[in-house]
Amino acid sequence: MAFANNPKYTGVIPPVVTPRTADGAIDIPGLQAVVEHLVTGGVTGLFVLGSSGEVPYLTNAERALVVSTIREANAGRVPLIVGANEQTTERVIEEGRAMIELGADALVVTTPYYALSNAAEVEAHFRAVHAALQIDIFAYDVPVRTHVKLSVATAVALAKDGVIVGVKDSSGDDVSFRQLLLATRDFEGFSVFTGHEVVVDGAMLGGAHGVVPGLGNVDPAGYRRLFDAAVAGDFVTAAKEQDRLTEVFEIVYTPDSARVSGGAAGLGAFKTALVELGVIGCNKMSSPMEDLNASEASAISGILTRTGLL
Amino acid sequence: MAFANNPKYTGVIPPVVTPRTADGAIDIPGLQAVVEHLVTGGVTGLFVLGSSGEVPYLTNAERALVVSTIREANAGRVPLIVGANEQTTERVIEEGRAMIELGADALVVTTPYYALSNAAEVEAHFRAVHAALQIDIFAYDVPVRTHVKLSVATAVALAKDGVIVGVKDSSGDDVSFRQLLLATRDFEGFSVFTGHEVVVDGAMLGGAHGVVPGLGNVDPAGYRRLFDAAVAGDFVTAAKEQDRLTEVFEIVYTPDSARVSGGAAGLGAFKTALVELGVIGCNKMSSPMEDLNASEASAISGILTRTGLL
Amino acid sequence: MAFANNPKYTGVIPPVVTPRTADGAIDIPGLQAVVEHLVTGGVTGLFVLGSSGEVPYLTNAERALVVSTIREANAGRVPLIVGANEQTTERVIEEGRAMIELGADALVVTTPYYALSNAAEVEAHFRAVHAALQIDIFAYDVPVRTHVKLSVATAVALAKDGVIVGVKDSSGDDVSFRQLLLATRDFEGFSVFTGHEVVVDGAMLGGAHGVVPGLGNVDPAGYRRLFDAAVAGDFVTAAKEQDRLTEVFEIVYTPDSARVSGGAAGLGAFKTALVELGVIGCNKMSSPMEDLNASEASAISGILTRTGLL
Amino acid sequence: MAFANNPKYTGVIPPVVTPRTADGAIDIPGLQAVVEHLVTGGVTGLFVLGSSGEVPYLTNAERALVVSTIREANAGRVPLIVGANEQTTERVIEEGRAMIELGADALVVTTPYYALSNAAEVEAHFRAVHAALQIDIFAYDVPVRTHVKLSVATAVALAKDGVIVGVKDSSGDDVSFRQLLLATRDFEGFSVFTGHEVVVDGAMLGGAHGVVPGLGNVDPAGYRRLFDAAVAGDFVTAAKEQDRLTEVFEIVYTPDSARVSGGAAGLGAFKTALVELGVIGCNKMSSPMEDLNASEASAISGILTRTGLL
Repeated sequence: MAFANNPKYTGVIPPVVTPRTADGAIDIPGLQAVVEHLVTGGVTGLFVLGSSGEVPYLTNAERALVVSTIREANAGRVPLIVGANEQTTERVIEEGRAMIELGADALVVTTPYYALSNAAEVEAHFRAVHAALQIDIFAYDVPVRTHVKLSVATAVALAKDGVIVGVKDSSGDDVSFRQLLLATRDFEGFSVFTGHEVVVDGAMLGGAHGVVPGLGNVDPAGYRRLFDAAVAGDFVTAAKEQDRLTEVFEIVYTPDSARVSGGAAGLGAFKTALVELGVIGCNKMSSPMEDLNASEASAISGILTRTGLL
Repeated sequence: MAFANNPKYTGVIPPVVTPRTADGAIDIPGLQAVVEHLVTGGVTGLFVLGSSGEVPYLTNAERALVVSTIREANAGRVPLIVGANEQTTERVIEEGRAMIELGADALVVTTPYYALSNAAEVEAHFRAVHAALQIDIFAYDVPVRTHVKLSVATAVALAKDGVIVGVKDSSGDDVSFRQLLLATRDFEGFSVFTGHEVVVDGAMLGGAHGVVPGLGNVDPAGYRRLFDAAVAGDFVTAAKEQDRLTEVFEIVYTPDSARVSGGAAGLGAFKTALVELGVIGCNKMSSPMEDLNASEASAISGILTRTGLL
Repeated sequence: MAFANNPKYTGVIPPVVTPRTADGAIDIPGLQAVVEHLVTGGVTGLFVLGSSGEVPYLTNAERALVVSTIREANAGRVPLIVGANEQTTERVIEEGRAMIELGADALVVTTPYYALSNAAEVEAHFRAVHAALQIDIFAYDVPVRTHVKLSVATAVALAKDGVIVGVKDSSGDDVSFRQLLLATRDFEGFSVFTGHEVVVDGAMLGGAHGVVPGLGNVDPAGYRRLFDAAVAGDFVTAAKEQDRLTEVFEIVYTPDSARVSGGAAGLGAFKTALVELGVIGCNKMSSPMEDLNASEASAISGILTRTGLL
Repeated sequence: MAFANNPKYTGVIPPVVTPRTADGAIDIPGLQAVVEHLVTGGVTGLFVLGSSGEVPYLTNAERALVVSTIREANAGRVPLIVGANEQTTERVIEEGRAMIELGADALVVTTPYYALSNAAEVEAHFRAVHAALQIDIFAYDVPVRTHVKLSVATAVALAKDGVIVGVKDSSGDDVSFRQLLLATRDFEGFSVFTGHEVVVDGAMLGGAHGVVPGLGNVDPAGYRRLFDAAVAGDFVTAAKEQDRLTEVFEIVYTPDSARVSGGAAGLGAFKTALVELGVIGCNKMSSPMEDLNASEASAISGILTRTGLL
């Protein structure tokens, strides 16, 4: 299997987590270690300031520090795709400009949120951001957070006009995902990434160009093997790797849902796994999210052992 | 690829549409023709009285007539899996009993609806239905209609105890679908079917045992080829067939959404395609749903031609 | 305050609960006692087979038994407004016909459910039901169960043409409720009832003609006092009575939400309160709903004492 | 009627719109004129940088300019309650600090958004913001934008501990609103405001201390009359004024929903009405929202005439 349309971006581009020290500061050495873990694990890019990076919880100074730290640790080895996460158009443009100055190679932009938009406004939003910034833009479709679904029609219109260079789909709508793949398959250079950790084999069978897996923080090499098998057309191997990674993904269900929020459970599990793997030293979450506790860490350690990571 | 757990049900089991004559009566010869079209097309079972069969719109007399007609037309060639579609437990049991008397080989049961249930009630519901009826039961997960998601945990508990013989998943949640596949893969005889027409290749790559495709009314042979390729491990061929079927699925987007409801659009497109294919004579919908018009039929005909069905 | 448009129905029309004996059978003497409790409490009508009557859980035989029992116990003292609760149009018509034969003075009809309708289908649905049955029809707007909101525009169109004689609003949308009141205030004979127990004073200040309170099973006389005060224009007294009833309503929050579903909590609380008040003997719920336990009954008893009912 | 608990804030506190000139800049003289219109209309406070002020669309520089302009135009006549609108805790604290420096007398804070929080995080969020800023804080409950409902239990806990001085409720949940009123009625100095323009009479009958009406930009004097009548216990007069204002509110339904988004329709109608009333010169919206057109302005003008405002 080759990608006939020469996509500019392919592969495994995990959303980098943001480690904190026990006192809540950004853990610079920890973040450097995560980058090293990911790049040596074979990732093809780094998605900086995504939801898995706790972007809504970072102050502007923290956002800048995270981007700078990752840029320096990466040292140009893979492209940096940076989230310009703000409520609406003009604020996204200002945020995007700051991210470009900090070294972003491409930007990730969501639909407006907190706002009550329609399809025309969503389309105008992306066009305005691209016109102002003139950089590669990924549309990030994440209705669980923005409460707006990026329609296939809007994505196709933006792709056709070169406004966006790709879509990162975390919509959980596999039907529209397949339709988007079909509709854009001949668009030169265009990419469609899935953001769902457990369906990468099927997504690539349908033509996806890669994955942005939060769980890729934990097992970048596993996702790279899965991607390589799929590119080679060996889907049976890809599915076996996917099955193993789906077992690893069980770590996100270990936290006690009576104590830990939906947002904190997944990200806390990724951080806790990185502690168990010895990559970082502390699983501290951004306030006011709860940290995972020792019992949850133990459950996660068990899963990592069972799936060959520990 | 073989199914290691010896599933009792596999393959392509389309939800049979219910043709009506221009005056709104059940079209008996039309329904017989649909059954012939499906069985000779290679389907491995018939899902009777599903949403695609317009079950919520049929009176009790019409439901009985539809089941009897299909049973006689099928003449035992493939199993009949019949929907026992009612609001809550005791009513489902009564409905299921009637369907068994009419010749059902297995029943399809949803979570309670119109009710405001919790997970314990959903589990108790399936247990009570199975205890009363002692027949193969598929749990039908269709939150777009019931507004309740059947959790993986509940499905696994029911499967483990032999309460259900399979799940028909129309939840649109591909993450939980994969998790269900993994959790039940060693359950002797158990089956997981996807209800989504455009992701069958990926579903089978993940281990699904078959599909319940509304679009299978239109192109049963295409779905059979897709299934057979996947079973043979030839996923590249499966994906190509899936891509073609995804194009055929575009027929459901032809109706004018300002006039035709979401419910009527898909079912109306299937019926209209069957008219275009010469299988039935009339695309009449159950009242109060709107019939598709000539312009929509023409668009559907174009898609059928483009995809090799006409 | 007078109702300038001469509404045919006004006042307090509680949705009658359905008591069961410990073995799960309909509790006939209990149901008779509830009717006596309500009619002597001053209600102006009885809403039979509503959600509070557990209608989705009753078999057809049970539904008939409930209507007959209530009709005989009521002996013509107040009108019987009976739910014709089914999925879509033709099934509602059959159900409505049965209810009329059993003695319904008027019917309560929801939007279609389990179906995926649009506004035109909803309007056609009510028109078809009225055309077939030629009886007073209340539109029941209960999106928490049907997942469709009856729009103000549709309700007004139906009201203007005499298709519906009133609306029972359980939508929780107080903005559209006020708009409906304004839009229909000059429609001769038309009624708008709120289904929300704790905002009756405000609803009547805005022009509502009455209330269908589940909690009216527990304290019919309280709701009658509230209604009478509002009709007399004494809203300060109405608000005081409403505040007391809002405290009584706390009984629905006593059940343990980890054990008891949303559906069972409210109805179980009403039944349990009726046991505490000595009206019925058993708080048994329809299967598979959980019964409230002794600790919950004790909490309910405390609230009844605190609010002057015990 | 007196407010027995001596609330610090009462009355009519409209969310001030943000006029723009035709070229998209903040319209300073227009904003000054709006402030004058409101204060002379009898409002008891100004809610600055609310949703009606298009806060998600304003850059940081624009936000500062809006607050400064309003502060100077108001010249201390009424308190300024300013929105500190950001995604999560630390960002809200930074934003709140900036607003305090710009002259805010109190802050309005929503639940976290874009985040996936639970009740504990929501409570911790408000506690952390108050601890850091030590200023009067209104909790703003607006689930249509944040997709989180502030529960009665959380609001009561925060109120009891003095973390919040009031709630602005735009939840559309009139049941929980009444329960909040009852639960906090004895809390010294605490206020509950409704954000819904058409149910102020009922809200105040239930004990609310005031209203934050977007429509108050258009008719501040009408809302003041409604408030004064309710405080005087003359609810019949209050209801009449409310009915008239509900008719005025029809302006928000004049925009063509095929062209204008939900967000733009209401705010565009307020701005257009202010143009028709001669308060401001231009109804320009923040990009990418659509401006209302001449035909929509004409419909609005008709409503203003019919309701005595023109």
